[in-house]
Amino acid sequence: MEINGVEIEDTFAEGFPIKVARVLITAITERWAMEAAREATGFGTSVIMCPAEAGIERMALRSETPDGRPGVFIQICNMGYKNLENSLLSRIGQCVLTAPTTAVFNGIPEAEKQFDTGAKLKFFGDGFQKEASYCDRGVCIIPVMSGDFVVEEKIGAVDGIAGGNFFIMAENQASALMAAEAAVDAIREEEGTITPFPGGVVASGSKVGSRYKFLKASTNVRFCPTLRDEGVCTLPPEIGASYEVVINGVSREAIERSMRSGIKAACTVPGVVKISAANFEGKLGPHLFGLHEILG
Amino acid sequence: MEINGVEIEDTFAEGFPIKVARVLITAITERWAMEAAREATGFGTSVIMCPAEAGIERMALRSETPDGRPGVFIQICNMGYKNLENSLLSRIGQCVLTAPTTAVFNGIPEAEKQFDTGAKLKFFGDGFQKEASYCDRGVCIIPVMSGDFVVEEKIGAVDGIAGGNFFIMAENQASALMAAEAAVDAIREEEGTITPFPGGVVASGSKVGSRYKFLKASTNVRFCPTLRDEGVCTLPPEIGASYEVVINGVSREAIERSMRSGIKAACTVPGVVKISAANFEGKLGPHLFGLHEILG
Amino acid sequence: MEINGVEIEDTFAEGFPIKVARVLITAITERWAMEAAREATGFGTSVIMCPAEAGIERMALRSETPDGRPGVFIQICNMGYKNLENSLLSRIGQCVLTAPTTAVFNGIPEAEKQFDTGAKLKFFGDGFQKEASYCDRGVCIIPVMSGDFVVEEKIGAVDGIAGGNFFIMAENQASALMAAEAAVDAIREEEGTITPFPGGVVASGSKVGSRYKFLKASTNVRFCPTLRDEGVCTLPPEIGASYEVVINGVSREAIERSMRSGIKAACTVPGVVKISAANFEGKLGPHLFGLHEILG
Amino acid sequence: MEINGVEIEDTFAEGFPIKVARVLITAITERWAMEAAREATGFGTSVIMCPAEAGIERMALRSETPDGRPGVFIQICNMGYKNLENSLLSRIGQCVLTAPTTAVFNGIPEAEKQFDTGAKLKFFGDGFQKEASYCDRGVCIIPVMSGDFVVEEKIGAVDGIAGGNFFIMAENQASALMAAEAAVDAIREEEGTITPFPGGVVASGSKVGSRYKFLKASTNVRFCPTLRDEGVCTLPPEIGASYEVVINGVSREAIERSMRSGIKAACTVPGVVKISAANFEGKLGPHLFGLHEILG
Repeated sequence: MEINGVEIEDTFAEGFPIKVARVLITAITERWAMEAAREATGFGTSVIMCPAEAGIERMALRSETPDGRPGVFIQICNMGYKNLENSLLSRIGQCVLTAPTTAVFNGIPEAEKQFDTGAKLKFFGDGFQKEASYCDRGVCIIPVMSGDFVVEEKIGAVDGIAGGNFFIMAENQASALMAAEAAVDAIREEEGTITPFPGGVVASGSKVGSRYKFLKASTNVRFCPTLRDEGVCTLPPEIGASYEVVINGVSREAIERSMRSGIKAACTVPGVVKISAANFEGKLGPHLFGLHEILG
Repeated sequence: MEINGVEIEDTFAEGFPIKVARVLITAITERWAMEAAREATGFGTSVIMCPAEAGIERMALRSETPDGRPGVFIQICNMGYKNLENSLLSRIGQCVLTAPTTAVFNGIPEAEKQFDTGAKLKFFGDGFQKEASYCDRGVCIIPVMSGDFVVEEKIGAVDGIAGGNFFIMAENQASALMAAEAAVDAIREEEGTITPFPGGVVASGSKVGSRYKFLKASTNVRFCPTLRDEGVCTLPPEIGASYEVVINGVSREAIERSMRSGIKAACTVPGVVKISAANFEGKLGPHLFGLHEILG
Repeated sequence: MEINGVEIEDTFAEGFPIKVARVLITAITERWAMEAAREATGFGTSVIMCPAEAGIERMALRSETPDGRPGVFIQICNMGYKNLENSLLSRIGQCVLTAPTTAVFNGIPEAEKQFDTGAKLKFFGDGFQKEASYCDRGVCIIPVMSGDFVVEEKIGAVDGIAGGNFFIMAENQASALMAAEAAVDAIREEEGTITPFPGGVVASGSKVGSRYKFLKASTNVRFCPTLRDEGVCTLPPEIGASYEVVINGVSREAIERSMRSGIKAACTVPGVVKISAANFEGKLGPHLFGLHEILG
Repeated sequence: MEINGVEIEDTFAEGFPIKVARVLITAITERWAMEAAREATGFGTSVIMCPAEAGIERMALRSETPDGRPGVFIQICNMGYKNLENSLLSRIGQCVLTAPTTAVFNGIPEAEKQFDTGAKLKFFGDGFQKEASYCDRGVCIIPVMSGDFVVEEKIGAVDGIAGGNFFIMAENQASALMAAEAAVDAIREEEGTITPFPGGVVASGSKVGSRYKFLKASTNVRFCPTLRDEGVCTLPPEIGASYEVVINGVSREAIERSMRSGIKAACTVPGVVKISAANFEGKLGPHLFGLHEILG
């Protein structure tokens, strides 16, 4: 299979189950909504050593925000609902409540699972917090030094998927990186997914396990172009560098849509040779995304 | 005391000791150095509920980076060197090693305390890592999918200070926020400090303690303008909103310099009425920064 | 009439006829599409002394770009079709053809008026240009040092309107500016309009004429808060500063929609006191936009 | 000659004389200073069909701005002082006076040539303008709707040079573009130069003349990789794409410094094969910049 002359390998991405909360942050301007969103989703690339996986889904339209202000949808993901609730409390409490002019709304009011995030954060008001109804949503109002902070009582979460992914293999580093940037730009237009790594891109794809007992994951040596002389790298000579785009999302459909959109965008960039994907013989998880099915 | 007609209150900021590591991240372009820096310093506003305090200090000049590429100095701060070492390993390992085209260098080679951060991260190379000397610095080279990742063996840290701060009190929210943005812009030019909150600004200044046993800090009710009717807010009527700028740094001198620079910048913004500072009767820490001394 | 407690004055904006071309610029990434768009629309605030009025309308969705790459819609406006054709040739030829990785497509293929912009620019190819059909559009392909530059043969234009506007009057400069930024953010979501001034905002609203024979427009003294002592400023004391948002667009409906959306956004910002609009007793033009009708 | 394995061709760039004005724009925040600077320098890539050449030189340090606010140095360049004066009046009058919170200062007070730019713009104040001394500089104060606009009476200009340049020739488009971006980032750190093209990069390098009588410049066919089959492109097969960085500046020394800094930065990017430069057998101008001399 080919797109724009780029080979799409007949392989699949392997993802794993994760709990995903979706939060809508609004602020006085887009710029300030983004500052809060970036702080709240930072240090959130992989649950291997980060306290959560997190990222910016997309800008909200003004018609989607209860207060008519600019907004950003973010996702915070963790293993199990208990961990996720803690992540929500600490990330919203420390990074959004503290951010200038923000408000926080439930990004999945229709989800079955609902955390009392706002209802717990409200005690920061030290007795002066209030409960109110705002556009048919139950919110808490916490007085702060710059006015009032509004946070919805409930934040919803769903059984989502982490680890959707594809590899962009290119003639050289710059082509692979430009293509990864184009892919992440495209995924930012889609509903329901995040790309939790820095700028949406993973430079250091990994394999499960290592030769060291203390290390559960290590560099994916088969795909390391500087290991050609050692005979370890199995890449054909026309591939000089690869980047991976990792996608978490609220559903299988959302991840498929973003994989499709991201791969197509990557294939518009000159120098891209091949699209592949990371899988681990089922060691990582049960969610398989066949590239040919998604793109067919 | 007045600057540009803005009253500088005769009070002081109260800071506390913290361990501060300084890291230099370089990348192919400024944009990608910033992406890695932002991810690595996110979810890092306050050790109350964040796993570390972290922020971007300033852009590096090309002449300051060992590889002649664009660079960003970041600081990662934590209570005690053991916590700080863990923060370095996880934040650099998960947010910079994974970021496209980055390299990591020691931001304080002259410090007494040096962590083996690079020397520990290198095992990700699964036996294919190498040690080398690069511009007189000992580095580890880890093969990744896009080439080689270079990380300096040692990352230095010092006894620093957290919680340097000042309040910007203004006619209304927008004036206070513009002034805070101007202050943070100015502090970004200074050496040795970070402003760890979102966009450098704190909206929700707090007091130590609360009426709830489970909550160690709560909103600083005296400065909440929406609590005027309750008689709790003690602000004069001409103050409509306040923001706080919190500053961590490698030394007392660095924090003084940034407080001075930030306060002066805030006082260029119309509508700013008063500069004050947060202190807690010594409950927080021993480092006192008198506004009049700093600005005198 | 009031929105969020902000008074909407019962007045109207006065616009004038202008010719509007709409161009779709695509590029390898959003960042590079924006660089080209900004250069091509710069020095384009007012036909009084700029060679054209120009601005960024909105980001294109990937599904809207013929090449599936990121895109930006811009508008270039001028008095008369002949001037407009020259503006298109020079701005696209000098600022988009020269920009890395860009392509140029017709932003209004359905318009009656169509310029041969691409068909004229193609001669830069010095005989090596080619004509082709691309997604059912006639394009010219010009070889350049980085590959091929694709430009659609035709660029469409319509009889549009310039000078749609509203004033944001606020307690102070920072509130007025934050509100203007929020308004411009909101207008960027709308179809068919641009805000040609720097960052979308006008600081120096003008009246027609002056006491100097050589000057056709001068500062709108009635609204200059620093002329209160001279008795020239007629603003009530609660208004400390005003900004104007000027809107050009392809149709009356588009301007009405953006005025509505921008005014509503401005009214979300604390410290905004009143919304008004600029009119000149019919000296400027025939297009009147009543605030109460638009918002009613 | 080689840098990082990149061949530096033994050739030279050919520049031509131009008049250069240097302007310092300050504003309430960096963001607003940049908005004004971008608008004022837009549509300013080449005097062939733009009304001027213009660009952003660098951010100013706070210690360099008379009002202690954030600032940006821009340059506006034109053929002859009369054209340049008109460019200053229209670009500052339409794009900076109109921009929120800006002030304008002389960027070369020490130059012999000084225009009365501020002294002419002041009449916009319609009789309410004032003259004043501000930090030992003569300024005009013009009342506007958001407060007062301050503009220095004099703006200085010098005999400068346009057309300093180098080519970045790389394996493919993405490598060449990344390297161009890295070069422009580096040049932004240097004093006294601008890169007037979009994002600092030229995609469509040209030769003097064409086969069409009406066209004075056309695509540089020898360097067009898609003309390989026609036998017109003389590039070796390993070069897949090139970009040019064009540099204007206040002096020969400034351009040499920026060429050196930009070329070194370009050579840090993988995939770059060769650095060359554009010259036209003296048809363009008398200023020659030998790559080997500059880098030697």
